[in-house]
Amino acid sequence: MSFNVFGVYMIQMTLIQIDNYGPWTVTPTPRTESDLQILQSELFADVQRQFATKKGLVFFTRFDNMLAVTNGINKEDHFRIQRSIRNRYPITISMGVGAAKTPYEAQKKATIALQKAGGAQSAQRKEILAIDSLVDPEDSFVQMAHIDINGVTKSLTDIVTAFDTNFLVNKAQHHLMTKLIEKGALLFFIGGDNFMSPCNGLSPEDLKEIIKEIDEKIDIKHKAGVGRSDNAEDSAYLADLGLEHIRDGNNQEIICVLNQDYLKHIKEG
Amino acid sequence: MSFNVFGVYMIQMTLIQIDNYGPWTVTPTPRTESDLQILQSELFADVQRQFATKKGLVFFTRFDNMLAVTNGINKEDHFRIQRSIRNRYPITISMGVGAAKTPYEAQKKATIALQKAGGAQSAQRKEILAIDSLVDPEDSFVQMAHIDINGVTKSLTDIVTAFDTNFLVNKAQHHLMTKLIEKGALLFFIGGDNFMSPCNGLSPEDLKEIIKEIDEKIDIKHKAGVGRSDNAEDSAYLADLGLEHIRDGNNQEIICVLNQDYLKHIKEG
Amino acid sequence: MSFNVFGVYMIQMTLIQIDNYGPWTVTPTPRTESDLQILQSELFADVQRQFATKKGLVFFTRFDNMLAVTNGINKEDHFRIQRSIRNRYPITISMGVGAAKTPYEAQKKATIALQKAGGAQSAQRKEILAIDSLVDPEDSFVQMAHIDINGVTKSLTDIVTAFDTNFLVNKAQHHLMTKLIEKGALLFFIGGDNFMSPCNGLSPEDLKEIIKEIDEKIDIKHKAGVGRSDNAEDSAYLADLGLEHIRDGNNQEIICVLNQDYLKHIKEG
Amino acid sequence: MSFNVFGVYMIQMTLIQIDNYGPWTVTPTPRTESDLQILQSELFADVQRQFATKKGLVFFTRFDNMLAVTNGINKEDHFRIQRSIRNRYPITISMGVGAAKTPYEAQKKATIALQKAGGAQSAQRKEILAIDSLVDPEDSFVQMAHIDINGVTKSLTDIVTAFDTNFLVNKAQHHLMTKLIEKGALLFFIGGDNFMSPCNGLSPEDLKEIIKEIDEKIDIKHKAGVGRSDNAEDSAYLADLGLEHIRDGNNQEIICVLNQDYLKHIKEG
Repeated sequence: MSFNVFGVYMIQMTLIQIDNYGPWTVTPTPRTESDLQILQSELFADVQRQFATKKGLVFFTRFDNMLAVTNGINKEDHFRIQRSIRNRYPITISMGVGAAKTPYEAQKKATIALQKAGGAQSAQRKEILAIDSLVDPEDSFVQMAHIDINGVTKSLTDIVTAFDTNFLVNKAQHHLMTKLIEKGALLFFIGGDNFMSPCNGLSPEDLKEIIKEIDEKIDIKHKAGVGRSDNAEDSAYLADLGLEHIRDGNNQEIICVLNQDYLKHIKEG
Repeated sequence: MSFNVFGVYMIQMTLIQIDNYGPWTVTPTPRTESDLQILQSELFADVQRQFATKKGLVFFTRFDNMLAVTNGINKEDHFRIQRSIRNRYPITISMGVGAAKTPYEAQKKATIALQKAGGAQSAQRKEILAIDSLVDPEDSFVQMAHIDINGVTKSLTDIVTAFDTNFLVNKAQHHLMTKLIEKGALLFFIGGDNFMSPCNGLSPEDLKEIIKEIDEKIDIKHKAGVGRSDNAEDSAYLADLGLEHIRDGNNQEIICVLNQDYLKHIKEG
Repeated sequence: MSFNVFGVYMIQMTLIQIDNYGPWTVTPTPRTESDLQILQSELFADVQRQFATKKGLVFFTRFDNMLAVTNGINKEDHFRIQRSIRNRYPITISMGVGAAKTPYEAQKKATIALQKAGGAQSAQRKEILAIDSLVDPEDSFVQMAHIDINGVTKSLTDIVTAFDTNFLVNKAQHHLMTKLIEKGALLFFIGGDNFMSPCNGLSPEDLKEIIKEIDEKIDIKHKAGVGRSDNAEDSAYLADLGLEHIRDGNNQEIICVLNQDYLKHIKEG
Repeated sequence: MSFNVFGVYMIQMTLIQIDNYGPWTVTPTPRTESDLQILQSELFADVQRQFATKKGLVFFTRFDNMLAVTNGINKEDHFRIQRSIRNRYPITISMGVGAAKTPYEAQKKATIALQKAGGAQSAQRKEILAIDSLVDPEDSFVQMAHIDINGVTKSLTDIVTAFDTNFLVNKAQHHLMTKLIEKGALLFFIGGDNFMSPCNGLSPEDLKEIIKEIDEKIDIKHKAGVGRSDNAEDSAYLADLGLEHIRDGNNQEIICVLNQDYLKHIKEG
């Protein structure tokens, strides 16, 4: 796999949407909020576990709408997950799937495919599996950046209030999202001070530039491990290893990029 | 319960923090991201279910640090939840508890109590239960606002891409947080286009003003149901009913406030 | 609390039954077996967690029908659990509650109360909460025996096949059930080589006799810790401590009975 | 696929064992029983979900020792499940895998492979994956019988006590196990009045004979759907369809056998 990420490499994304969820939450009267919170987070954990057995990775996004990187996961796999949810939850899910050169374009195709099948709050639309496109194995490519905030525990968690830390992490998210979306990259909060960015097509230089600009603008310093492979799981793992590498060097570097062949290197090493 | 919310009414908040979580996630090598996502969301669902049996409400916040409104939940209850997590997860949790007139002050006391017991990434600190203060039953008061975006399904979900909707919801969150924190109120994303704001001490007029300012600044229209009772569950439910009331009136109102006695009204009606 | 267990002490039991479950599992066609297994075990875990926050203990029994010891858990508590399940599962549950001097009589009252409200496979009967009787705090008493097989790991798990061990454990269960039911006591498998027997009204001498008879008949040696308190959780814990006590003495004793005041002894010790 | 099941068709079984579980449950003092029950049932649900994504089927067995039919599931798949459990539970699991002409022989090979690696309560043995043998795709064959009790709801659930029904179901299980094990077949309780029997090598005539003998001996009438395919999921589904077929004929038949080609028939029909 070459360093050039502007090839024909394709990322596949799936939009997972609870059918007619809003109306359900208030029928016949508003359902207990704690129950809805449990339902949503268990549904997320559940689809995560199922996509993860095939090396996919799901982001909770808005919970009633989740986005996942699903290279290598086919129609039958998607159908089986829908069936499994229908059998165990009071709600059903519809999905749209799209493949493109950038994550933004891929989720756009996935969204349009699903929107064509009916509205999110249509009582008629149920358990749609709308596939715009799937990535062929030989074109499969996922670039994933794991971005975190430098020294958040020492600089925030242990000294300011829990909500203030939360506020600053959310502020960082807002600024990262704003910058990355311009480059066709997505950004998801994954807990703590961590963000994961599917970012096919984004060059390391551009990512470094974005991190610098945010530091200048809001005085929050990030670093990023970037992983590249043919699936979400391995790319996320390589991104994690990249972050560890930067930490080992006392955060002197801002970016560390690792390619798929590095995994072989580890297994053999 | 009078309309005046600037009395001696107190809200109790609990900070729930995974002990030494950051280091654990990368020991001995980075753990699979999908597993961490499942662990975090199941832990949230789990503590939610346990606090909810006593009418508390937990917000996922940063997942490794969660904030909860816990009026009516005592030391023994907190201890039993810690024990339950220790017995079923590979990690343990520490907690800080604080009571104050505003949610911001309450979580601040909770945070400080826990910080005094050691750092979040200290290998020594484990399963601390640091109680700064608990609310007495006669002082117990929770004001909760359920805020959502007007017509998000028609104006966003069904016409723009899933990530663009997510981006706009996050933008709204950032602006709401920024304004509310100045008033001592907190804001948490609870999925979809919904936010929950523990907001003791915030007047309906100030909340309406904030919503108007945000509409002018970023062109996103919100509405809010506000509930008031002596516990988180009932206040959240009253807030939901308030929202429904506004929807029934075609979103002509921006705010609808309901007090605890409204619940009796429903049960008897 | 005196040693005499034939007083006015009462145990409370709840029957938890999935409404109209059989027909649902094959509608419109048989649902995937793995999904049903997951649904059933997660439902059990879920009601367990909710009853456990109030010191109850649920046994999986037949999964679609579960029995629980619920001393100290009132009507409102039961209702909240039903609501919570309705909001998060594709099925609903009905419950019957009964109180009596023996567990057998208590579950009989609970069963009859529910049967009167309609059949388990009636499409009309839904979310019934049929309370025959609740135990008053001053009468509340739970005697629980934790019974296991001596040295099962060395004598079975590590030398015979997994299924043969399973077969022998099931055989032991069948014989224990047969003997205990004659004394008004129940028996539930709780995993491994462990059984839990709610057994108000059973004397230690009778339990010892049963264990000896089974040893003679099928050559399987059991031991039992017996706990007594006013709730299921503490009695089960005292029973566990009793078993540990017997193990510490190299299984010389067959029975060890511990009363509630032993808990204070530990906490103060 | 011919009707003759005495060919070279092979079934693959996996023994899943919690490492050093017994000692863990009482260290440093006995852990709360409700927590252990939740841990065990959630672990079962979790491995079920993961094996199920590859068409396997897990039986809870003794919970600390589970048996699964795993045709088509390879070494890497097993390893990934072990890793996933290690990352989210306070315990780890070891596995043994064996393939043979009968389920009994397959689980025997799986057990022996794991026993060779160390005892179930050895503190040294951890996360072993001991593979005796895997089934080749061309030899893969699973015969599964879904056995239930005729009219259990009308004859038991709705008229006798919940525990008496449970007692009779357990009695039926004990007798079915005793007879089936002689033929190299296994039997697992799967809830309600249902049993699942992996039974490669058992002829329909022998199964019918066993059901008749049990009716004569203990006056409990069973029926059985039998499914045959190259994986656990499809065989269990065919067995379910077989049971439905018998029910449609008012239980006149005792056995109904369906082969894999019947699935195509449905999909095309």
